[in-house]
Order: sequence, then structure tokens, then C-alpha cells
Amino acid sequence: MKVNGKNIRPIWLCHDSKLVKIIDQRRLPHEFTIKELQTVNDVIMAIEKMCVRGAPLIGVTAAYGLYLAILNAPVKTVGDDYLIKTCNKIKATRPTAVNLAWAVDKVLAEVLKAKTSTEKIDVARKAAGEIAEEEAERCRKIGEHGLCLIEEIKRNQKEGTVNLLTHCNAGWLACIEYGTATAPIYAAFDKGIDIHVWVDETRPLNQGARLTAWELGKHGIKHTVITDNAGGHLMQHGMVDIVIVGTDRTTSTGDVANKIGTYLKALAAKDNNIPFYVALPSSTFDWKLKNGIKEIPIEERDSDEVRYIQGFDKGKTRNILIPPESSSAANYAFDVTPARLITGFITERGICKATEDDIKRLFPEKDDGRQMTEDGRRMTEDR
Amino acid sequence: MKVNGKNIRPIWLCHDSKLVKIIDQRRLPHEFTIKELQTVNDVIMAIEKMCVRGAPLIGVTAAYGLYLAILNAPVKTVGDDYLIKTCNKIKATRPTAVNLAWAVDKVLAEVLKAKTSTEKIDVARKAAGEIAEEEAERCRKIGEHGLCLIEEIKRNQKEGTVNLLTHCNAGWLACIEYGTATAPIYAAFDKGIDIHVWVDETRPLNQGARLTAWELGKHGIKHTVITDNAGGHLMQHGMVDIVIVGTDRTTSTGDVANKIGTYLKALAAKDNNIPFYVALPSSTFDWKLKNGIKEIPIEERDSDEVRYIQGFDKGKTRNILIPPESSSAANYAFDVTPARLITGFITERGICKATEDDIKRLFPEKDDGRQMTEDGRRMTEDR
Repeated sequence: MKVNGKNIRPIWLCHDSKLVKIIDQRRLPHEFTIKELQTVNDVIMAIEKMCVRGAPLIGVTAAYGLYLAILNAPVKTVGDDYLIKTCNKIKATRPTAVNLAWAVDKVLAEVLKAKTSTEKIDVARKAAGEIAEEEAERCRKIGEHGLCLIEEIKRNQKEGTVNLLTHCNAGWLACIEYGTATAPIYAAFDKGIDIHVWVDETRPLNQGARLTAWELGKHGIKHTVITDNAGGHLMQHGMVDIVIVGTDRTTSTGDVANKIGTYLKALAAKDNNIPFYVALPSSTFDWKLKNGIKEIPIEERDSDEVRYIQGFDKGKTRNILIPPESSSAANYAFDVTPARLITGFITERGICKATEDDIKRLFPEKDDGRQMTEDGRRMTEDR
Repeated sequence: MKVNGKNIRPIWLCHDSKLVKIIDQRRLPHEFTIKELQTVNDVIMAIEKMCVRGAPLIGVTAAYGLYLAILNAPVKTVGDDYLIKTCNKIKATRPTAVNLAWAVDKVLAEVLKAKTSTEKIDVARKAAGEIAEEEAERCRKIGEHGLCLIEEIKRNQKEGTVNLLTHCNAGWLACIEYGTATAPIYAAFDKGIDIHVWVDETRPLNQGARLTAWELGKHGIKHTVITDNAGGHLMQHGMVDIVIVGTDRTTSTGDVANKIGTYLKALAAKDNNIPFYVALPSSTFDWKLKNGIKEIPIEERDSDEVRYIQGFDKGKTRNILIPPESSSAANYAFDVTPARLITGFITERGICKATEDDIKRLFPEKDDGRQMTEDGRRMTEDR
């Protein structure tokens, strides 16, 4: 998407494919820093230190990590041992990121089929690039389908702005291009529809205020940052036409685990009769799960993410302490929004209701209750 | 309430009643500063700069302001003109604070009856002191009635901790003693009931994380700071037994305007069948109002309160910027929780349902639809 008028992705190959560049997301929005990754160790560091975050982007970065490992292998003939050891090292960076392991294994499988070192390098680069393009394409399709919803609102209201509300960052920074929840927003904007986005700041890590606001602003989309407390009031007063959020894990019955606070917005949307949509690539479905609240484990993260807030002061990114030093804090990272509060899902195959039957209509091949999507992938990381 | 083992109020008279001392609440929780107010101008500054906040405390501070003005009057014989001019100056500090004007006028009415300068000084000091004691007593009674609810939960669960959740700061820092929402909490703690409080940080100004957490911690009450996003998840998982919040303005039909985000917590409580109580002195009823969402105007405050957050770093209280410099923000200070989501009101007269009939049962003298409480007072400030 656009940054200062130029199209950019959160990761790309350059210098005759000799190195990978990424946007260092830790510094956003106050510092726009491009980081060069020359070796697999640079990639490991970038994932560990969360210069990159978001399931699809972590996967693509990891895939390029394996490519760089092969490109810069210490010996001319790369053995299977070296490859497998390297894969394990990459996978260990964020062990809960299923997407990461999936991407690395996908590149590895291709590389193991290749014979010469040159072939292995070519195959790895190509496989990693394909993963990136597939992620982008899935998001493009989500945008295409979601656009219809925004166009319908526009038709019904005849004049004025379409007001959307989103929570956290399910944007291109996490997804190569378009994003998931933001894909319909970019599609509507690019079609010239007058839109405005209410951006939940999304405590504790403020991915909304820091990343979504930055993305939208750079692309030229009107938006307003609000506290996570404000959405209910806006909905009560007719200031929100549609809510679109992402998801980290989705049950076959339509329950959604997403960034903490999503559930509260879904309750408010229901109470005010406002459509509440979840945008997702089908890879977030966990087909074996039936009851999100009971079955999806909710990660409890470091309480200092609640106690300290990162911001900018006097030319420097700083962390400041909010509550008394002696007060403890709890940091549940996600919550579960029950299907009954969700108007529908926007997927790469189209839109469906958040019901087991309608999900199966769109994904009939999952009807046998198999656990994984065709490519065996799930997303669990959306930080 | 207790701070470092000593009983303290947010305001008190000292040095032979020659000066007023206050806790400078702007610096909490990281700096505990006592500020001396020697003149009416000191008082005006303290209210304007929000060293004191919360309707009852602002009222008491203003009342002491008039007292200091008379005590330090430039001429020996204080004329009515001087008194009225001074009152207007004090009232202008926060024009929407109805409580402030009410308290100043109450002291003025007493002073105008007095004859000699010495008498005027005595009468003013006494009137201001009475207002303080009345505020404290109202809160004490709220605590007494609310305690019954906590005792009932304790009886039903037999063992373990009673978990409460509160939003913002409706504590003693705003109310001389006990607070409103916190009054039942202090009462239960002092009775030895095992309680734990989930403290919503309450963005944008973080009065929960900064003030409520500080109050509870200083009194020795177990508490955990959470983001405003977290309450719904906690309620889904049985980790909250009761929610108690304050109110800034309450309709005769039971709708409640309170700090932004209260509505979202009420929705979650309802969805999870958890009792949701509002603690209030009856002075917050605006008897002429019937529909909170339509009739209560919601103050929109400076957007920089959303964009910047105050915290502590390297021995200094600082403000840091969160979203991109170019992103705008909206800052609605309150929202309205409809009566249908409220289990009941805890008032100084007892507990009632959030219905017009049950409110009238407790306050039968209001049945004629008169606008004001007996003393003509409402609260609109609870910053």
C-alpha cells in the first residue's frame, strides 16, 4: 500500500535478491525505519524482537530466512542436515506461531526436491515469494468481497460518509498487502467511496493507534483515533455504519478469538443493530473447535505491557509507567466473541454467516471435520 | 482513608484554620504532593489546574475558597459586593460544575446572614466544614448499603475471594471519604471480607490506573489493573462477581451518564448475568430527565487527552504521544448506560432498582417531577 506516495510492502527482496528489507514496526508510527536482513540470523532476530508481527508477515519473513540461509551457506553444497537444523532454529523464534512453521516447512519441502546448490537457492527464493503473493492475493479477495458491504451501505444512505470502526491492526503491516479487516477499507477508498474509519487505539500495545492509524494515514484515508472505551457511545449515536475486525482463530461454529476488547465492541454493535463483520483468510479456521469460550486458550502476556505504554517525547520513543509501581496488572491478550454477536465473515471465497451451516456452505470440503485447512495452516499470532 | 498507615482526606484545614491543604492529584500516583492553599487565588488555581477533581471535592474546595477570601479580606469589614464578586470568580473556574456553584452559594447564604467580620469568618469556616462532613456521611451510608451486596455474594460462594470490577475513579479522592463506587469496597475490606478489585485503567486519563489503584493500594486492598478492553473476557470466565461504578448524572428513569466505557462493561455484565450496580448520592439524579441517551449532552474534550498519555519515566512525570502526529483523535468523556442494563442503585438511602417506580419508592418527595434535589444540587464533574 502507499507510504508517502510510493507503494510499499512490509517486506521485500532487493539488491539482486541478495538481501531482504523490512519495515521495523517497533518504531512506528514515530520513526519509519527500514531494516536490512542479510543473514538467517538477522531474520531470527527480527522475528524475535518483533520488528515484524502478524501471522502472515511472520510466515513470509521466516520463509525468506530459509532462503537467506541457503544463499549464504558456509559450504558450497548444502546438506539436508543443515537445512533441517536451520528450519528448527527459525521455528523456535516464536513457537506458538503455527503460520511460521508452516511457511518454513513449505519452503523446505521444495528445497529438498532440488539437486544443485543453485537450484536450491532458486527454489527457496521462488517458494518464499509465492507465499508472499498468496497472502497478498487472499487479502485482495477479502477486500473485493467486503467492498460489496460498504457499497451497499453507501447506496442505502445515499449521501454522506460511510463510517467504519476497527479494532487492533489487521492491516497490510501484518499481511503483505491490503490486510484483512482493512482490505475492504482500502478497496472502498480506491473506488472513491467517501469513508472514514474510527480506529480503536487497542490497549495494551496500541496497535490501532500506532499501526492502523499510520497505515490509513499514509494511504490518505480519513480516520480518527478513539479510546477503546468510546465505540459504544459512537454506536449509540449512529456514528458507526459497520464494524470490521480481524481474527486470530475461528471455530467451525463461528466463534472468534481476536485482540482483547473485540467482544465488547461486538456487544455494542448488537445492542445498536449495527453490522459486525469479521474479515479472515480461511486459514484462521480451527475446524475441530466448536465452542470458542471453552476451547480457545487465551494467552496471558507480560503485565508490563499494561503497566508501561510506549510513545514519543522529545524526539525519542520511550516507555512510561502508568499505575503505581506497586500495583499489579493482568494482560489477557485475546477474548472470544461468540458467533451470535457476529453478522458475518468476509473470507477469500466470499461472505457467509457466522453459523456452522453457512461456513460449511462456503467451505464444503471441511464438512468431514478435518482439523486443518488444505495447506495445514492456522494463524495464532496477530500481535 | 489510609495512606501509609495514616488517615487522610483529599482536603483539610490546618494551622489554626489559617490554611487549606490538598493532595495534588495531578501528580498521583508517582508523586504524592501536599499543596498549601493560603488564599482564594490559590484555590482558584487548584481547581482550574485540576489539582482537585471530582464533583464533591471541587465543591468542598470552592467552599473553603470563599472562607479563605473572607479570612484574608483586604479590608476589615467585608462588604456584600466583595463576597459576591469573589463567589463569581470561584464559580467561573469550572463553569459546568453545578456542585461547585451550589457549595459556594451555600456558604455565601450563611455568610450574608452574619454581621461582624469575625462572625462571617466563623460562619464560612463552619459552612464549608459541614459540606465536607455531609459529603463524607453520604458516602459512608452508600458503603453501608453496598456492603450488604458484597456480604450476600460472600455467603453464596462460601469460600474464596469476592471479585469486584470498577471503572474510573469514584473513590475517596473525589469524595472526601469512602468514595461512591469504592465505598462498599472499603466497607467490605474493613469488615475483613476477602475482596479483590479489577481496576479498569480508564482511558483516556487513566483515573482507574492512576487514582483508584493508588487509593486501593494505599489502603491495603488487593487489586489488579486491567485495560478497558479486558472486563468482558473476565466476566465470560467467571472472574467478576459484581461490577460497581459511579455516575455523573442519572435520569429519573434510571439511565446513567458515567465515564466513557461504562456502557460497554454494563453490556458485558448483562451478557454474563453479573450484577451491575451504580453507587450514587441522590444529588446526581436529574429528576427532569427521562431518556439519558437523547437528553444528556456528552462533553467532548481536548483530543490531546487521547493522543498523549501521562506516565512516569526516569524520575519524572511525562506526557508521551501515541498515534502518528498527523492522526486526529476524538475524546467523548462520558457515555450513557441505559437503565435496562443496570441491576440497581446503591444510594445513601438504600438500594433500589434502576426503574422510575423503584427510584420514586426511595425518593417519594421527587414524585412531582421537580428538577433538583432538596438542596438544588447536581453533579456533572467527575474528571
